[in-house]
Amino acid sequence: METLKYKDFGVDIDSGNDFVKILKPLVQNTFNPNVLGGLGGFSGCFEIPKGYKNPILCAATDGVGSKLSLAIEYNKLESIGIDLVAMCVNDLICDFAKPMFFLDYYATHKLIHTDAIKVLNGIVQGCKMADCALIGGETAEMPSIYQKGDFDLAGFAVGIAEKSDILKRQNIQSGDIILGFASSGFHSNGFSLLRGIIQKKSINMLQKIGGQTLIDLILNPTKIYVKDFLQHKTKINALAHITGGGIQENLIRILPENMCAIIDSASIQTPDFFNIFLPYVQQDEAFRVFNMGIGMVIITPKEYVDSILQNSITDKSQPYIIGHIEEGKKEVIIKR
Amino acid sequence: METLKYKDFGVDIDSGNDFVKILKPLVQNTFNPNVLGGLGGFSGCFEIPKGYKNPILCAATDGVGSKLSLAIEYNKLESIGIDLVAMCVNDLICDFAKPMFFLDYYATHKLIHTDAIKVLNGIVQGCKMADCALIGGETAEMPSIYQKGDFDLAGFAVGIAEKSDILKRQNIQSGDIILGFASSGFHSNGFSLLRGIIQKKSINMLQKIGGQTLIDLILNPTKIYVKDFLQHKTKINALAHITGGGIQENLIRILPENMCAIIDSASIQTPDFFNIFLPYVQQDEAFRVFNMGIGMVIITPKEYVDSILQNSITDKSQPYIIGHIEEGKKEVIIKR
Repeated sequence: METLKYKDFGVDIDSGNDFVKILKPLVQNTFNPNVLGGLGGFSGCFEIPKGYKNPILCAATDGVGSKLSLAIEYNKLESIGIDLVAMCVNDLICDFAKPMFFLDYYATHKLIHTDAIKVLNGIVQGCKMADCALIGGETAEMPSIYQKGDFDLAGFAVGIAEKSDILKRQNIQSGDIILGFASSGFHSNGFSLLRGIIQKKSINMLQKIGGQTLIDLILNPTKIYVKDFLQHKTKINALAHITGGGIQENLIRILPENMCAIIDSASIQTPDFFNIFLPYVQQDEAFRVFNMGIGMVIITPKEYVDSILQNSITDKSQPYIIGHIEEGKKEVIIKR
Repeated sequence: METLKYKDFGVDIDSGNDFVKILKPLVQNTFNPNVLGGLGGFSGCFEIPKGYKNPILCAATDGVGSKLSLAIEYNKLESIGIDLVAMCVNDLICDFAKPMFFLDYYATHKLIHTDAIKVLNGIVQGCKMADCALIGGETAEMPSIYQKGDFDLAGFAVGIAEKSDILKRQNIQSGDIILGFASSGFHSNGFSLLRGIIQKKSINMLQKIGGQTLIDLILNPTKIYVKDFLQHKTKINALAHITGGGIQENLIRILPENMCAIIDSASIQTPDFFNIFLPYVQQDEAFRVFNMGIGMVIITPKEYVDSILQNSITDKSQPYIIGHIEEGKKEVIIKR
């Protein structure tokens, strides 16, 4: 009788094992003394850092959405892994957690080693930027779900926070200042709409804007704000990662019931290349789908503002004032 | 000028927000006093349980592979979420970790609430079986990656272990007994091959075997061994979750360098319905792709065997002797 092999249906255990051998040294680049053991255990093991009074674990998961399709289409897979890490760790810091470790899920039609290594390299880079260890991951071949050449990514990050820090957003009060940290572009949100515009309006993705092609600008990886957070942590009452839903729907998540956030839209510096897409989107919709140039928002007492503005690590994410807090109904008002 | 909306390209923020409202009470079913806050924060927060001398965090990620395609094809989505949790938490216990919390990633063509609720209900059930809290998740609409009606799932679980327990596998010695806990079927591995056989050999999935249809037998969710582990924990030197690679490639992962595992294949009770597929697969290949009826393997000193056999929680996963440990080259020998 004819017998069948796993390989015949697109799943190659040997090739998967070879792949693990290639990625092992890459992944170990992210290790620190808290990581126990190496790859090949059933789970990734991590020793809880000492020195916390009431340590709380914070966990976040995310993907990169349809940005992935553009990266696949233009065969630019080098930095999509940074996006994946960024989307997760930028959520962690909003709960005052320092990222500890990361795991990734990579599911594809058929494992193409060169592509997977590019993606994984990005994840490793992202982990280094966020100072977290890549302690596990899953690579799955699912030819029945994914089309040839396609794949999807999910990321998972765990951080540690001091319980009293998580509660700090209760300290938000009238007169607090809202600072915005610049985004590096669209980050990883709004890409279904962007791709729709590109297609419907035949946008030339190879046009150059300030020396860079539009496709490179649009695929520029999501900024990781972990170092900014760690630097200014003690001066911050609350942080909001600006993702899907925009400033409005993300900032409201950290407001106390009796506090209102007033944003001065004129103060927001939107990158020039956004203007290629913005004419096709109503302003309200744009503010709801895109970050409009602000990737992370922090709320801080007035007295700390000068110190934060003068002591920021990178000029690229240099924060600036975009609004303030007033007493009132819990809402975010974007003034035009 | 014509403006475009996110909705026009398959992403509906309002519908996503409605969905979160529906799932909130479901998810809260899994909460325990260690969970801080509710849904809607940027990350899920969990207080570290007290009472560990040297607490180690263990983390695992997995998907359900091509089992998902069969579940979608036959519109039987109720228990695939249990598989997702099982694949992750069964890995955690192999490092002696008690599961604490879980997060899921659900990416789809377009969010169909009824389908998503079925899947999520399964995840909630699985989390309850594993006694872990569902503290976060991501639902993504990616019409450019997923075909109509399709979706993918990734799960992430974090547990806590005592450092000295993780090191227990070093205690494995000659004469130790290898016990197998019955699987509930194929679990979530080998489904690309199974689907290939179903298609190529026109297997009738609606045929009844012992009162159940073949499709129900094959989609029977992966057994969660957390309670078995917690019950026998002190008597166990090591555990191996039998997934892709079978007994051979999973059991070898926990062996010390100078120990050899001898498995008596005749002792293994393979469920009857496996025989519909096994004639089309060489025996070696079958042992490498399928669990052959054993979902979890434990290694235990001889003196504990009787106590474990007599005091098992469920008759369904009743463990039995399938082999023993000998001094020798680190390998797994399956005797026929």
